[in-house]
Amino acid sequence: MTALDVLGIGNAIVDTIARAEENFLLSAGLSKGAMALVDESRAAALYENMGPTTIISGGSAANTMAGLASLGRRACFVGKVKNDAAGAEFTHDIRKAGVAFDTASATDGPATARCLIFVTPDGQRTMNTFLGACQGLKADDIDDGCVSKAKVLYMEGYLWDPPGAKQAFLKAAKISRENGRKVALSLSDAFCVDRYRDEFLAMIREGVIDLLFANESELHALYQTADFETAMSALRDEKHLLGIVTRSDKGCVVASARDFIAVPAYPVDEVVDTTGAGDLFAAGFLAGYTQNLPHERSAALGALAAAEIISHVGARPQKDLLQLARDNNILT
Amino acid sequence: MTALDVLGIGNAIVDTIARAEENFLLSAGLSKGAMALVDESRAAALYENMGPTTIISGGSAANTMAGLASLGRRACFVGKVKNDAAGAEFTHDIRKAGVAFDTASATDGPATARCLIFVTPDGQRTMNTFLGACQGLKADDIDDGCVSKAKVLYMEGYLWDPPGAKQAFLKAAKISRENGRKVALSLSDAFCVDRYRDEFLAMIREGVIDLLFANESELHALYQTADFETAMSALRDEKHLLGIVTRSDKGCVVASARDFIAVPAYPVDEVVDTTGAGDLFAAGFLAGYTQNLPHERSAALGALAAAEIISHVGARPQKDLLQLARDNNILT
Repeated sequence: MTALDVLGIGNAIVDTIARAEENFLLSAGLSKGAMALVDESRAAALYENMGPTTIISGGSAANTMAGLASLGRRACFVGKVKNDAAGAEFTHDIRKAGVAFDTASATDGPATARCLIFVTPDGQRTMNTFLGACQGLKADDIDDGCVSKAKVLYMEGYLWDPPGAKQAFLKAAKISRENGRKVALSLSDAFCVDRYRDEFLAMIREGVIDLLFANESELHALYQTADFETAMSALRDEKHLLGIVTRSDKGCVVASARDFIAVPAYPVDEVVDTTGAGDLFAAGFLAGYTQNLPHERSAALGALAAAEIISHVGARPQKDLLQLARDNNILT
Repeated sequence: MTALDVLGIGNAIVDTIARAEENFLLSAGLSKGAMALVDESRAAALYENMGPTTIISGGSAANTMAGLASLGRRACFVGKVKNDAAGAEFTHDIRKAGVAFDTASATDGPATARCLIFVTPDGQRTMNTFLGACQGLKADDIDDGCVSKAKVLYMEGYLWDPPGAKQAFLKAAKISRENGRKVALSLSDAFCVDRYRDEFLAMIREGVIDLLFANESELHALYQTADFETAMSALRDEKHLLGIVTRSDKGCVVASARDFIAVPAYPVDEVVDTTGAGDLFAAGFLAGYTQNLPHERSAALGALAAAEIISHVGARPQKDLLQLARDNNILT
């Protein structure tokens, strides 16, 4: 394999998306805006109560890799599907998005992962993930050569949920560091941070992580504070860490020990579905970062990619993001 | 079952949609804007050459019924799926759209029908249908009581493709007429008209059909003329027929022996995917027709529903069309 910009490790998921009213979330006991893990029977019960659906490949890190490829960067994804219909869809879609994907499919065990996503009229998404085959990802699925060739290793915090995947990440992070590469972690979800706060903080403080992607609620969860300034101050105290904090329509802040750089959000006509907003922001930022653009331009690329994704249903880009970036004079 | 506004009979299909460049259509030998029938191996080969996909229930008459339900009308769909994953998706989606759907699923034979749809940058869709389980639709699948209670029986011209479905339609049309109901035919596709021109014209002239939905190219195919005025003149000569002719961004013409009524198209910011434009136009028109609105208002409803559907990927409404019609002062 030739040199890579980013290798992403994550849960390989097919999304099933439907509109829902606010009061449905309440009656179904769903926490708006969050990701909840569900078993197969809960998933079946929720599906029975979903409206008409749209099915699109998803998975946080997988969405980010698809965004990177659309921005002309070389991306590879590692994640586990089963050799079933949904697994074939996931594999087709990520490869056709231009992302290298060669993780062996599971031949037995649970089905390919599904995420049931309810999108309320304000565009906010509420997710329910059946991890299925993702639970089979193991350290053996990491190809040393592949990792060593990637400028950035990117991993979603959700990977801490399936028991073996964490080992895969730690193995990859070690290889990446030994080769002088950068390691990025996305905090994924505030509840996910609650589950694994100590481990995430330890990795940050042990210098395993070079770049941290988080939204406001995830950052608040990480530092157990409701105050944004307090959380940002704590983030700045993490030496050698580049923190990229997204704030929805308030834009983002790129935080280092040296300075904070605020970049505005990109305006959208209508927020249709926020699924993938953070994933595509990360894609845009990493597209800039891996070609050594100034952080302002990388963040602007992130904002543009996020704006594209929230303007339609689903977390995979519908437009050629490289062309979009050129049309918006962010890339030449 | 209580009284129905419209009972639709059609091919029960799940759509697999991807973006494609114009030159892909040429290299794959696809006729832009048309619907081609494909066998399973051709479908598999085309899928291998598709970009990342979005999977959404489709089927022309099924889309129309979903649109009617979204407009607050009582709709029922008759069509054949297999009891496989795609069949379960189709069934879930149409029922959750508010459409009654009780046709027995096939337990053996070919898989649930799929349509592979390539959407070019101009938003035009080019379709490739594997009919699969649709070929099992038979006259026995028609419930007499159901048909007799529907103000309008609506049928897609595509139904002439699977061999047994035509008999189902003819049986339903007979019941409908005996109960003093109206029968509507959508011409579906110019190539479809080429295949069954004589039969369609015979049904129109024998008085089996009361309402005819067609776009310009289908109307040209029906009367074998390249001239719109000639075709409209021929249409007017069909006694007792109400013709509803859609003309893309030029709006539509409602044609009767008495007069032609032209209604403009509804403006859209961006044509994302034209799949379902005709289906949703028919839904809007029939929503007005079944509550005895003037043809101008029915056509305006059709234009509004078509505008919604072409502004996003997929042929099932993403917005509450009744609310949209109220917001646009077409319905109160």
